[in-house]
Amino acid sequence: MLRPDAQRTIADLRALAAFGRVGTGVNRRALTGEDMAARAWLVERMRAAGLEAEIDGIGTVIGRTPGAKRHVLIGSHTDTVPKGGWLDGAMGVIFGLEVARAAMEAGLPGEVGVEVASFCDEEGRFAGLMGSSVFCGTRTLEDALALRAEDGAVLRDAVAAAGLAGREVARLDPARHVAYLEAHIEQGPVLEQAGKQIGIVTEIVGVERGRVIFTGRSDHAGTTPMEMRRDAMMAAARMMTAAQDVLREAGSQGRVTVGAVEEVRPGVINAIPGAVRFTVDLRHPDAQALDVVADAFQKAAESIAAEEGVEVAVDRFFTSPPVVFDPDLVAQVEATARELGLSTRRMVSGAGHDAGYMSQIAPTAMIFIPSRGGRSHCEEEWTDWDHVVDGTRVLYHLARRLIAS
Amino acid sequence: MLRPDAQRTIADLRALAAFGRVGTGVNRRALTGEDMAARAWLVERMRAAGLEAEIDGIGTVIGRTPGAKRHVLIGSHTDTVPKGGWLDGAMGVIFGLEVARAAMEAGLPGEVGVEVASFCDEEGRFAGLMGSSVFCGTRTLEDALALRAEDGAVLRDAVAAAGLAGREVARLDPARHVAYLEAHIEQGPVLEQAGKQIGIVTEIVGVERGRVIFTGRSDHAGTTPMEMRRDAMMAAARMMTAAQDVLREAGSQGRVTVGAVEEVRPGVINAIPGAVRFTVDLRHPDAQALDVVADAFQKAAESIAAEEGVEVAVDRFFTSPPVVFDPDLVAQVEATARELGLSTRRMVSGAGHDAGYMSQIAPTAMIFIPSRGGRSHCEEEWTDWDHVVDGTRVLYHLARRLIAS
Repeated sequence: MLRPDAQRTIADLRALAAFGRVGTGVNRRALTGEDMAARAWLVERMRAAGLEAEIDGIGTVIGRTPGAKRHVLIGSHTDTVPKGGWLDGAMGVIFGLEVARAAMEAGLPGEVGVEVASFCDEEGRFAGLMGSSVFCGTRTLEDALALRAEDGAVLRDAVAAAGLAGREVARLDPARHVAYLEAHIEQGPVLEQAGKQIGIVTEIVGVERGRVIFTGRSDHAGTTPMEMRRDAMMAAARMMTAAQDVLREAGSQGRVTVGAVEEVRPGVINAIPGAVRFTVDLRHPDAQALDVVADAFQKAAESIAAEEGVEVAVDRFFTSPPVVFDPDLVAQVEATARELGLSTRRMVSGAGHDAGYMSQIAPTAMIFIPSRGGRSHCEEEWTDWDHVVDGTRVLYHLARRLIAS
Repeated sequence: MLRPDAQRTIADLRALAAFGRVGTGVNRRALTGEDMAARAWLVERMRAAGLEAEIDGIGTVIGRTPGAKRHVLIGSHTDTVPKGGWLDGAMGVIFGLEVARAAMEAGLPGEVGVEVASFCDEEGRFAGLMGSSVFCGTRTLEDALALRAEDGAVLRDAVAAAGLAGREVARLDPARHVAYLEAHIEQGPVLEQAGKQIGIVTEIVGVERGRVIFTGRSDHAGTTPMEMRRDAMMAAARMMTAAQDVLREAGSQGRVTVGAVEEVRPGVINAIPGAVRFTVDLRHPDAQALDVVADAFQKAAESIAAEEGVEVAVDRFFTSPPVVFDPDLVAQVEATARELGLSTRRMVSGAGHDAGYMSQIAPTAMIFIPSRGGRSHCEEEWTDWDHVVDGTRVLYHLARRLIAS
């Protein structure tokens, strides 16, 4: 039998995809019935492979090979966004399971084992990266349990309903965890378009999120001359296009997205909008560049507001600084992939991952596997089997290397 | 007693404002209980003044001085937008009542009388300018009765519930109606800012309304490089700003308004919008210029769509051609105002009015009275008493001139 076992990996991915299946996608919001059923299945699969496995007091599943004092930790998440895809998160967890299984079958040296994690609520039903934030101690258990979902559910109640209240909570322990490895689908088109097999993730972008609110005056669309208007919609449109100009000046690594127009008031065809509110999501791998862009954005908003005779407020409500992964570990990932004859590309992750919190405490690295068409968070999400198998092999051989060293 | 009677006019305006009062504004949607109570009150006031008055089979109130073979028709509307102001429409109707009343008191010559109209549903509960469209024969009674309001009500049922089913419907008759005169608040800031007392309306702008739909692809806000996006929101924002540039090239008389953003899909902060739909309201007094702007707008949309890698559809669902009022009658309005020592300004109406339909059949003219701060369709709507009284005087002396001629 070849190690790792490609057929077993794919069979497990398929079995996991049955929990919360919707069309060709999956709807498995953290701590819902579908999600808990998937976690129970995962614990059973881990135990069947000989791992010691439990769901902890916040919903995170941990399984580890027995007998070792230290562990290479491999993980990701099995919860999904609403109507998400079947590989986002799930693939990284099943890779961990397969690596642990294959490593045991190959005979572990004893001192260092493999630990596998499915962190709870990476996709933010209660809060993005919730499980890994508790695992890393960035968020206290008490703070986490008080979180409330948009559907009104409180995390404490969801944990109790799942039968997990009062259970011990697993923690990242730098004395015991020699490294954290995470494989994830790219969720973008870069690897596919470059024709590369393995993405070597060097960094995770920093994120700034805000709401921009322009307040002008609602007047009659016909009777108010253009030069007498205080049109909040025109100010908003100019700001959206200016945001792209501002970003371009900070090089090609940045991203800006206006994802939602939350309010246009009064919002009728024949009235000039008096108030417009929209979201901005700004990303850059360089902390200083992110600050520069965010400041330039604020100045552009103020300048456009002055020109259009409206008021502007920018509510910067979320900041996540960039993460730089351990350079030595990243180099080992790259070397392992190349030794296996796979083509690689160093790249920045534009999305947040559980690995972000881990990297603050333990040596951490990530690999990306190509996403067909760059699609994710939708039922079209797909990765070719060859790429899935390549990814498992990189992770397995990397883990073996770390166990032996 | 001075004619017209300023105190009587103001008292009637105040009494009418009590029907459907909300704060300092009025909520009197056509054919609702509040609106019908106001119409019944108006008929009573007309009869008390000696007019022959009725509500017709579509809800329009007509009152005329008895004994004349021909009439100067003076009108507007007493229905309002939801939570509208107390003068929009109502002022023009009460002016008509006062002119008829004062003319009778002054002794009419007999041959030509005064007729007063409050057209039903100018503000479009069922359809904008509904009453005047039926009065002018632009819309058949049957077509009108089949109209459905946004609240689900059918006009036929509303007419029946108001006890008007089967009543005769009044018509504009060029053999009998020597002219149509309408006074209205400006609903814009032009007269106030220019310090003028009477607006001499020469035209009503043409209107083109459409929906623009950009369709791109929704992708992850972090993982999709800027140059690989098909961002419907960015295309929409560029189109909104381009619309102003396109308009500027057609001179200073045009107006463009994006009043509503009807859809941003999926509409979450961390996803690139795959579809955006917004409304456009385009106005110009020159029919040719309106066509040129509408075509340039379409071309700009297609060019932006190509550049952004998205699809665009422009659904031009409403067109109303510009209206030019009778030049001789407009000159008489201007001369009358000046003889009374009032300052005037010739201007284009940016909003539609019942006068638009009338002008296609009978000599028609309008005057505008200054709106404080240009506000209308809101409870802040206000016009100073001096301006109200000036407006009544212009209309009275103009009517006298037309009756005598």
